[in-house]
Formats: sequence, structure tokens, C-alpha cells
Amino acid sequence: MQRYFLEESYDASQGEPLKLTGDDFHHAAHVMRMKVSDKCYLVFSDSVAVVAEVTEIGAEAILLKEIEKETQEKELPIAITIACGYTKGDKLDLVVQKGTEMGASRFVGFPGQTSVVKWDGKKLAKRQERLTKIAKEAAEQSHRHVQPTVSLYEKAKEFEAVFSDYDAILIAYEESAKQGEAGELVKTFQTIQPNQRLLVIFGPEGGLSPNEIETFQALGGNVCALGPRILRAETAPLYLLGAASYHFDLLV
Amino acid sequence: MQRYFLEESYDASQGEPLKLTGDDFHHAAHVMRMKVSDKCYLVFSDSVAVVAEVTEIGAEAILLKEIEKETQEKELPIAITIACGYTKGDKLDLVVQKGTEMGASRFVGFPGQTSVVKWDGKKLAKRQERLTKIAKEAAEQSHRHVQPTVSLYEKAKEFEAVFSDYDAILIAYEESAKQGEAGELVKTFQTIQPNQRLLVIFGPEGGLSPNEIETFQALGGNVCALGPRILRAETAPLYLLGAASYHFDLLV
Repeated sequence: MQRYFLEESYDASQGEPLKLTGDDFHHAAHVMRMKVSDKCYLVFSDSVAVVAEVTEIGAEAILLKEIEKETQEKELPIAITIACGYTKGDKLDLVVQKGTEMGASRFVGFPGQTSVVKWDGKKLAKRQERLTKIAKEAAEQSHRHVQPTVSLYEKAKEFEAVFSDYDAILIAYEESAKQGEAGELVKTFQTIQPNQRLLVIFGPEGGLSPNEIETFQALGGNVCALGPRILRAETAPLYLLGAASYHFDLLV
Repeated sequence: MQRYFLEESYDASQGEPLKLTGDDFHHAAHVMRMKVSDKCYLVFSDSVAVVAEVTEIGAEAILLKEIEKETQEKELPIAITIACGYTKGDKLDLVVQKGTEMGASRFVGFPGQTSVVKWDGKKLAKRQERLTKIAKEAAEQSHRHVQPTVSLYEKAKEFEAVFSDYDAILIAYEESAKQGEAGELVKTFQTIQPNQRLLVIFGPEGGLSPNEIETFQALGGNVCALGPRILRAETAPLYLLGAASYHFDLLV
């Protein structure tokens, strides 16, 4: 069953008819060809999701009514932000699509010291828009209650300024894997509390520099290994999220 | 440091000079431009890995001598086979590349009842060769001691014939995720013993049919959910392997 994210909160929608407009209207009416009495999921900005039934199809909007609330918990109990140093090509697309399916709540990009690509303001804005759309589509497809946000920073300083928003910060570091470090990720998962926020930082293809590691550590980050194998820049975030879901969704 | 997989076992190599020939020779000599006294890893067919130093560069072979054994464990304690119903496009390439980095020991493909693509013997052979090469390169890059194998079956019956080779069989099933099943994966990881073999089956985009589920269950498979979110066909194997490494490499 198709899923659409609405901009208003569930509370604000009370008393008003439910409505799909704009791109979602186009998708529902012309791609899915929905008809009166067809059903879909609507997810509100406050993460409430309902099953809704189409009551009327207009020229620019589809009207719906709520049938029942979706009660199954779809979100990880902690909010995980995946931060990636800028990599070549469209690897960030893959991280955002798969990472959204796996439960990330936010993605940020930053210029790593070994990043080969250099993106300026205009290109970053375009890319951020594209990644936000990928996250929205993946969130719909994977039945999320939250639509992950995407922020691409032009300067490392801007990225470092957000560290204070987090309850825990991990730095995925290849050298930790080589040295056989095994405990930091488990320790973090075991001590972080529900609704707390975890930032996990991944380097670009060339890895994080010793200088960057030092800066991130001074800002509260702890280095951790993701197993003994060396993962590519775009693979490591997917490993992290698979491990997080195993820990928080399955190991009870 | 570059890593090369050799066809002979470590035992068989004793008393003989270590040698890179063929494609590996070409890569070491012409791509990496290795010189006498440069070092690389050599991994033997029995999973022994050594650091080796170049002693001589010939016209068709590079000779090396062993410096020391690599002692860090790089492999999961259980051998995981990822079985995928044939999907459209190059999704299997992604599963094999990322799945190798994450520790899978074997990949198999099979025609699912909802598979849209139909591959015959010749096309399958070509594709198997290509995927084997992807696995080899990813194994080198990720510092594996095992080079995963790839088998693409033309008929579902051929695939089902290998079930008896396994100690445990899991079926990743979207409906289990929707129903909130949470225990089967954890239970399997907790009961399987070191060196045992686990087969995990993933459907194509259209999912596994009830009929297929029934057949796989009759052959010893148990359905399991990979968290409450719906994962794409190519994402689910990466989730499984991230969870497996977390359980076996980190949670100790």
C-alpha cells in the first residue's frame, strides 16, 4: 500500500478533510491511478501514520478519510545521524536511499580533508534537494514514520558546530578495525537511552586524517571499529544501521 | 597494502618461492608498479594470509618471500551464504560487492517465482564469472581471508538441492516484518555453532510467493524479519550481514 508524507501534524489535521496535493496528488492520481475507496497510508509531520481511504478525486487534490491508526513501531528508539565526508560519484545517493530504509533519522555531508570533490554553495543546494527527495521516496517505500532530513555543509566548521546537538558521537575509523577494537559500538548502543541522538561520522574514500580524528575527539567523539574487515566509505554506514536495528529492534 | 588471493594452499607452497602470475602479476607489476622490497598480502586457498616482500620481478611473474603471518581474525565464525532471487538490473553486483566486504562466504542466485528477468545457461555463466570477479576484488580490498564463491542456478530445483548442505536456513520475509516478528534471527545467531553454515534466502523485488515460502519451509527454512521497516531486495542482505558481524565480531 502506497505511503505519503504530509507537511501538517496529525493534531492540525483534526476537523479538516485529509488531502493529497502537489507532487503527491500527481503521483496518487496519475502514477498509482487511485480511485474512490482505494486506500493508502498517510504519515503526518509528528510521525503519526494512518490508513486512509479516498473519498473524492478532484482536479488538483485527492480527499481522504482516516480509517485507522498504524500502530506498529517503525522507528529505531534512538535517532541516528549518518555524517559522510564527500565522496566521488553518486555514493551518497546509495547511502541516503539504503540508510533511510535501514532507519537513519538524518544525513549530513561535510568536506573531509581527503575529499577529492569540492562542492560549492550552489551545487550543494542542488544536491541536498536531490538527496532529500531520495530520502522521501525511500521513507515511503520502507514504511517509515519519519522522513529523514539531509544537510550538506560547505565548511567543516559548520559541521563541527552541530556536534553539541548530540548525546553520543562515534567516529568510524579504519585503523580501529585494523587494531582489532571491538567494544566501542556495543558500549555506545548499551548505554544510550531512548530518544537520545547519536552522530556517527564516516570519512571519504581516503579516510579521515589524524588531524580530523583529533578534532572530532576533542568535540566528544569516540573512535570505533565496525568489525575486522575494511569497509568502503559507502558500505560502512549500512553496516552501522544493520547493527543498530539488530541491537534495538531485534535483541530485546 | 595490496592483497592477492593465490590458488594454492599454504601447505603446498612450502619450499617453493611465492609467485604472482597471470592477472595478479599484471596488476602488481603494471597497475601497482611494485618494485623489489615492496610488500603485499598473499592469501592462500586455505585462508592463511601472509605479508610478503617482492624479491624479483620477471617478465611474467613476480617472486616474493614470506615476512610474517597475518594473525588478526578477519572472518565471521559462521559461513553465511546469501541467496537472492534474480532481480532486475545490476542489483546483484551491489549485493556481491558490499556483501563480500561485510563477510559473506558465498552468494547464490535463483529464479524466484516473481522474478521478472529470465536468464538462461549462457547468460548465467557470463554473469557468474563477472560476479566472481567482483567478489575477488572486494575480498582483496576489504582484507578478507576467504574469497566468496558465486553460483547462479538456472532452475529453482537446483537451488533447493543445496539446502541439505546447511546447518540452518533463514527466509527473509516481508510479511514477517509487517507482523512484527522479532525473534528468529536472534535465536538463530545464538544457537548456531562456530564453523556451521547458514543459508539466508532473499526474494526478488516482487518478494517470495506463499508457495515458495512453503517449499523452503518444508526443506528446513524458518521465516524471519529484519526489523520493522520494509527493505528493498538488495538492501536486506546488507542488513543481515551488518547484524551478523555485530553479533559475532563485536558482541562478545
